[in-house]
Amino acid sequence: MSLESVLEAVRDRVVPDGSEVAELEAVVADLTERAEAAVDELPVDADVRLVGSTARGTWISGERDVDLFVCFPPDLPREDLRSHGLAVGWTVLPDGREEFAEHPYVKGTYRGFDVDCVPCYAVEDATEIRSAVDRTPFHNAYLEGRIDPLADDVRLAKAFLTAVGAYGSNLRTRGFSGFLTELLVLEYGGFRELLEAAADWQPPVVLDPEDHGVRTFDDPLVVVDPTDPERNVAAVCSARNVARLVHYARELRADPREELFDPHDPPPLDGGDVRAQVERRGTTPVAVRFAAPDVVDDQLYPQLDKSLAGVEGTLERAGFDPLRSARFARETAVLLVECGVAERPAVERHRGPPVGVREHAEGFHDAYVDDPDVTGPYIDEVGRYVVERPRNERTPGGHLEATLFDISLGPHVESALEDGYELLVGGEELATLAEEFGVELARYFDPRP
Amino acid sequence: MSLESVLEAVRDRVVPDGSEVAELEAVVADLTERAEAAVDELPVDADVRLVGSTARGTWISGERDVDLFVCFPPDLPREDLRSHGLAVGWTVLPDGREEFAEHPYVKGTYRGFDVDCVPCYAVEDATEIRSAVDRTPFHNAYLEGRIDPLADDVRLAKAFLTAVGAYGSNLRTRGFSGFLTELLVLEYGGFRELLEAAADWQPPVVLDPEDHGVRTFDDPLVVVDPTDPERNVAAVCSARNVARLVHYARELRADPREELFDPHDPPPLDGGDVRAQVERRGTTPVAVRFAAPDVVDDQLYPQLDKSLAGVEGTLERAGFDPLRSARFARETAVLLVECGVAERPAVERHRGPPVGVREHAEGFHDAYVDDPDVTGPYIDEVGRYVVERPRNERTPGGHLEATLFDISLGPHVESALEDGYELLVGGEELATLAEEFGVELARYFDPRP
Repeated sequence: MSLESVLEAVRDRVVPDGSEVAELEAVVADLTERAEAAVDELPVDADVRLVGSTARGTWISGERDVDLFVCFPPDLPREDLRSHGLAVGWTVLPDGREEFAEHPYVKGTYRGFDVDCVPCYAVEDATEIRSAVDRTPFHNAYLEGRIDPLADDVRLAKAFLTAVGAYGSNLRTRGFSGFLTELLVLEYGGFRELLEAAADWQPPVVLDPEDHGVRTFDDPLVVVDPTDPERNVAAVCSARNVARLVHYARELRADPREELFDPHDPPPLDGGDVRAQVERRGTTPVAVRFAAPDVVDDQLYPQLDKSLAGVEGTLERAGFDPLRSARFARETAVLLVECGVAERPAVERHRGPPVGVREHAEGFHDAYVDDPDVTGPYIDEVGRYVVERPRNERTPGGHLEATLFDISLGPHVESALEDGYELLVGGEELATLAEEFGVELARYFDPRP
Repeated sequence: MSLESVLEAVRDRVVPDGSEVAELEAVVADLTERAEAAVDELPVDADVRLVGSTARGTWISGERDVDLFVCFPPDLPREDLRSHGLAVGWTVLPDGREEFAEHPYVKGTYRGFDVDCVPCYAVEDATEIRSAVDRTPFHNAYLEGRIDPLADDVRLAKAFLTAVGAYGSNLRTRGFSGFLTELLVLEYGGFRELLEAAADWQPPVVLDPEDHGVRTFDDPLVVVDPTDPERNVAAVCSARNVARLVHYARELRADPREELFDPHDPPPLDGGDVRAQVERRGTTPVAVRFAAPDVVDDQLYPQLDKSLAGVEGTLERAGFDPLRSARFARETAVLLVECGVAERPAVERHRGPPVGVREHAEGFHDAYVDDPDVTGPYIDEVGRYVVERPRNERTPGGHLEATLFDISLGPHVESALEDGYELLVGGEELATLAEEFGVELARYFDPRP
């Protein structure tokens, strides 16, 4: 199959038809009118703007998200912005609920659409923003008049990045945001052109559409914000997700096929499958399972990632040789580290200072010389003292249990663990996770790029 | 006990009495006369010289070694030096045997003394030597007239270094030679003064008695040869042995006791002891045992050390985490590595290139993507391809057996192994070494500095 025919087929799925567009436009007109009427009731002026992919005509067919921003004068006190913003929101979405990003805002549904009604400051320039949401109208303005001819290419790019697991700038995914995807399609002049370029990317990749960047970034992908020379639009995008785009761009070009636009949804493993996988691999998985903290994903996943790095690090330093790790969260959260070593000796080697560094050397020597449980001190081939002392914990499970609360865990994970956790070691115990995390375990044991 | 009274007691043991000195002098006079008579029969002139510790009056009571050098004119062809040297040797020691250092020479016993009769060239200057033995007369000449007042201090130093296992410049010990010991005592002005200085040594330590050094050395101890500015007398001395002197100098000064002049001869372990030690330590010892190659120690031990480093390296790289290693040789030779890991998983992680390095990355990906035994390729957190592939050998014994002849072993060890070897894994099998190496195993499991 040719790339063009594959893209044609995908376009049929992702580009909304006329009735879908008409329905959206009617809803937007309606919501805008309600918002403007509510603004008229306020003692201040404000501007109602549609932003996001619906505003830019780059949403994927079937998505039903409307982002309505209410832009207040920059001299309005924060407290007033908050109350006026909520007043407008509650008028537009009387059945909505209050959410909190940088300011409180109202989120709700309206005629089958998910609507966010968000207050922001209408600053003069994107470099003067007072909170992150203030930037959005500038992004919208920048793309207006530029992205229109490439809207369907943006849709293809979003569908592709979604399918390979690299779409979304939330802190669980750390992938490509919608705005970043739009800028990339714009920069290269189309989706095919983006694919061709990305197939040859050698990170770090630096793009600066407005050629106004003023600093360097230590990120695998840098796209200087066209509305703010100080900002990398791709700052959150992980090296893994950048590499994913590179990999799948090559795949799609080398062997064009529609399935590369289908998200990978493996059948869940059951307990027996998990046991068989661990048996086959001959590893020692260790998992800590606890009640998932009740916080938004953008708070939860960074804490899980930090905790997982700590768990992996302590197991690594103790010689249990982690092979791979993962974190899952639904009702419960799981930190999983698959160890390559099941048991350590009863003694551990502890290297002291060079004998010639007198003060330290004498301190080390004197600390161990009379300890009946210690072998040595002896001198190694480079002239340092060494002792072999008893090891407290010989297994990865025992070691993790002994060190878990010495790890930097993040506040919500730490208090969840303090409330109790389950330590699962080996295939038999890992298998008990299959009921909740069968799909995650299927992905874990058969990982794709 | 004071240091002085300890040294007094040791001096009583190591300084020969008048009758021992008289006996040696009679033997030396006799041997010299026989050698000179033999020289008179030759068609060339040669000079007979007594060298070594007996010549310098620094031998330890009970040692019965006489080194007689026959110094030929430097223009004598090597072949003639060889034949004339042997002729003198056979006359002096008719029941001796031929040995080989840089030239052949005769070694034998005479009235209870071990005698070496060695031919050398009487060069003008130590920098012009034609073989290493030519240097010895220069060392002798340098110490003559200098070392006499310190002879007993040299004896104390030699006894001390011997007791702590750091005496001898052979390639098994890699310790302090007699000449080096003499230079150190001379440099510091006595044994107590050497102790005081060594206790504060912070290697690298550089001494240059004649203040004529012309180059730098990458050794833990440098003593520039007073007869050759290009040479480090301590070149062979290992970092471990330098550190040993530092350590035991501190010990002797902090807590003077005569036992520090007694070599450490632990009672041999039996098989049950060895099993118990391995059980206590919870390690996995792996030993290769083979017939000791029939070569001199100075050939054997460097090859054993090289082979041992290779064995340790291959086990380290395969993740068996060597804790300590040793080599023993008597009738058989043993390379022992004590592993901290008994079993590795059935899979091993194999890291490929960054996805962005296109040619390499595609090569790696394509090599593994269709392999049904391989997990992945997937992409790690820094954007590199990774696969998990089956591991050939999961145990240290299996791994060593599979890789032994890929190791750089040295020629005699390699051919000995080709003739056959025994692979011993675990405490039960290691215990079979106790019959031959009970003392070595006792030292191994209770190592001293």
